[in-house]
Amino acid sequence: MGKVICAGLGPGDPELMSVKSDRAIRGARHLAYFRKKGRAGQARRIVEGMLRDDVVEYAMEYPVTTELRFDSSEYRAQLVAFYEEWADRLEALARDHEVIVLCEGDPFFYGSFMHLHTRLQGRAEVEVLPAIPGMVGCWNALDTPFTWGDDVVTVLMGTLPEAELTDHMKRADALVVMKTGRNLPSVRRALAAAGKLEDAWLVERGTMPDQRVARLSDVADDDCPYFAIVLVHGQGRRPEAET
Amino acid sequence: MGKVICAGLGPGDPELMSVKSDRAIRGARHLAYFRKKGRAGQARRIVEGMLRDDVVEYAMEYPVTTELRFDSSEYRAQLVAFYEEWADRLEALARDHEVIVLCEGDPFFYGSFMHLHTRLQGRAEVEVLPAIPGMVGCWNALDTPFTWGDDVVTVLMGTLPEAELTDHMKRADALVVMKTGRNLPSVRRALAAAGKLEDAWLVERGTMPDQRVARLSDVADDDCPYFAIVLVHGQGRRPEAET
Ligand SMILES: C[S@@+](CC[C@H](N)C(=O)[O-])C[C@H]1O[C@@H](n2cnc3c(N)ncnc32)[C@H](O)[C@@H]1O
Ligand SMILES: C[S@@+](CC[C@H](N)C(=O)[O-])C[C@H]1O[C@@H](n2cnc3c(N)ncnc32)[C@H](O)[C@@H]1O
Repeated sequence: MGKVICAGLGPGDPELMSVKSDRAIRGARHLAYFRKKGRAGQARRIVEGMLRDDVVEYAMEYPVTTELRFDSSEYRAQLVAFYEEWADRLEALARDHEVIVLCEGDPFFYGSFMHLHTRLQGRAEVEVLPAIPGMVGCWNALDTPFTWGDDVVTVLMGTLPEAELTDHMKRADALVVMKTGRNLPSVRRALAAAGKLEDAWLVERGTMPDQRVARLSDVADDDCPYFAIVLVHGQGRRPEAET
Repeated sequence: MGKVICAGLGPGDPELMSVKSDRAIRGARHLAYFRKKGRAGQARRIVEGMLRDDVVEYAMEYPVTTELRFDSSEYRAQLVAFYEEWADRLEALARDHEVIVLCEGDPFFYGSFMHLHTRLQGRAEVEVLPAIPGMVGCWNALDTPFTWGDDVVTVLMGTLPEAELTDHMKRADALVVMKTGRNLPSVRRALAAAGKLEDAWLVERGTMPDQRVARLSDVADDDCPYFAIVLVHGQGRRPEAET
């Protein structure tokens, strides 16, 4: 009897993987990962050099998206078909084998694996190995405490409407904005409206060899990396209150 | 030349430590950790069985707190003196040695080490090793995706005033409440006021051998574990929208 193990990869530096994910990946005979068609894939790149010689790889390639708007019903239908196909294939594989599925960051935190996790319920044994979320790697890149005392942290997706972003940003002490990409201009305007733009940092490819850290106010509006996180640190009650 | 390395321990299961923290701890000659006076200490317990025979241990014991209110100025003064003393001692040690300081979860996420980190700036070389925050271990204990699509996550401390808790709880899709302890009754009332009590889980000692998971509505008001996290999962847009 096999099973599907989703191994969280953490933020990017392979040394930041858990001991458990590290072992699962080094031992994998069957290894699956998501990627865009024609790309090496971020997840696969992180495990480069860690794999057995006889590993069998399954690149789960997202349906091509350039012709269709990502929120169109045709695109959604393609995506559903894609997840269903891979749920079927993993279910079949897991009858006899252990399959390791890679997932960037922590799988249960906005991870794509969740769409397979849901579909595989009752059809295969599934185990998820937690990992350091990308945001944690990013705030560590700034080498400053992220939250203190009673700070309130809010995690937002850059894809939210600007007014909602502003509203949430006003109320939180510390902020994380993920999926920035093309939404960087509205994220920046929302931060300015909330009075937090001057305290915001952009971390691109946090903990990876080509990591970049910049003050968000110094980043050009058309410079919108997908694999980036915007951070505002909390100031908390310090240093007396925390125990 | 030595240095101070704060090794994040993750949520509790030693297998969930990063490869980097694991190596630092197994190799440590000088090892420091916080604990309450007279207690074994959570951090020290996590690394049990991993240490060298010749390790030198430094238990950094919090000043006794039972006689003083934690928000009194005397207590704060004692705490400041305590952090200053240990900053001095670590600075002295780090002149010739590498000292590993343990920290539960991720050190920069509400961690006590931050009070030493701040004080050691310019006085010793300090490196922080990121780790899986406790909340990530806790949401993985429920084996269900925590956030999807555009979900907004808010992290709150149970020590906040009840009205503030309610206000934030109403606005977020997914919730994390840390430092529950004696504040469990007000956390529960706030969740009820925000219409989220039925969806709330309590995870005590997440990923540890004696982990406990319960629906918050089934937990008695006087059953208020300190090392626990309250979670409400996001429902997000699923399964089509996420890529
Ligand atoms: C689909 S979400 C996956 C999140 C992942 N499961 C996690 O726990 O971080 C993709 C987003 O994660 C963020 N991200 C994850 N890791 C990152 C890193 N190392 N550096 C910068 N951004 C990262 C980016 O904002 C990206 O748009
Ligand atoms: C001072 S904070 C330290 C947080 C830590 N640096 C982290 O990243 O999780 C202590 C609080 O963390 C929470 N906590 C951390 N790890 C936990 C675990 N494994 N299970 C339950 N609660 C945990 C509890 O709410 C506790 O009150």
